Amino acid sequence: MLYLDDLKIGDRFISETYAITDENIIAFAEHYDPQPFHLSDTAAKESFFGGLAASGWQVGSITMRLIAHSFPVASGIIGGGVDLRWLTPTRPGDILHVETEILEVIPSKSKPDRGVVKIHAKTINQHGETRQTFDSSLLVFRASAGIKGGIFAPS
Amino acid sequence: MLYLDDLKIGDRFISETYAITDENIIAFAEHYDPQPFHLSDTAAKESFFGGLAASGWQVGSITMRLIAHSFPVASGIIGGGVDLRWLTPTRPGDILHVETEILEVIPSKSKPDRGVVKIHAKTINQHGETRQTFDSSLLVFRASAGIKGGIFAPS
Repeated sequence: MLYLDDLKIGDRFISETYAITDENIIAFAEHYDPQPFHLSDTAAKESFFGGLAASGWQVGSITMRLIAHSFPVASGIIGGGVDLRWLTPTRPGDILHVETEILEVIPSKSKPDRGVVKIHAKTINQHGETRQTFDSSLLVFRASAGIKGGIFAPS
Repeated sequence: MLYLDDLKIGDRFISETYAITDENIIAFAEHYDPQPFHLSDTAAKESFFGGLAASGWQVGSITMRLIAHSFPVASGIIGGGVDLRWLTPTRPGDILHVETEILEVIPSKSKPDRGVVKIHAKTINQHGETRQTFDSSLLVFRASAGIKGGIFAPS
């Protein structure tokens, strides 16, 4: 488990993989993004995407899962926001993984038990194509704060 | 169904509502954001959130659903990215709706069948508290392009 003082600029964390299928694209889209290009390959052929494409929200949510499992911050992954860019459509057959890099570590001046950590995460398929970039500023605590929340924390 | 020429600065679209429950917070988190503060109210009490909170990715995905149903762009909601800010935690009992506003309409100079539409969407609960803001630039087509993809399009 990692605390603020364990993180430094340039540290990188590589996730496991997640397979994209027609079935999981359609299941996610039926509930969260019910547009023809995410629901039917036939309908998607008449659309801008030219074939079935995953919702960007599915890609973002899968990225969160992969980061939670590969970047074990003791207090959890707590972000006030995120800047997402979908560079290329995510397609059935993609095997995604995430590479997370630490860009900055900024201890708080007013609250000594915490700091902000800026990360840049790329979601990449098995052919090395970057499907999404993800930039976020995380709130990370020192061990002394006694805050729990990371995936591996006892609860 | 709306095309590029139907949209103008200041147009607003109000969605239906979506109820947040312990059950849907936990179900989303189990798959996409398995951290104690999204999985267990007891564990969340020891965390930064002080009680069960929805994953920001659940809030973003629900926002997409509500926008897809309330902002009927004929070619679909196609964004190259999004800037999300989670202003306050989303909690069990929240009844969310989304208010989408058009900030800019920029016809393409090189491709006369399309343009970019900048939107700002707020996700708000029943007490008027803004849980999330969402800024995105959408690719929107003119009717002449013949592109389909919106939720109400025949497919």
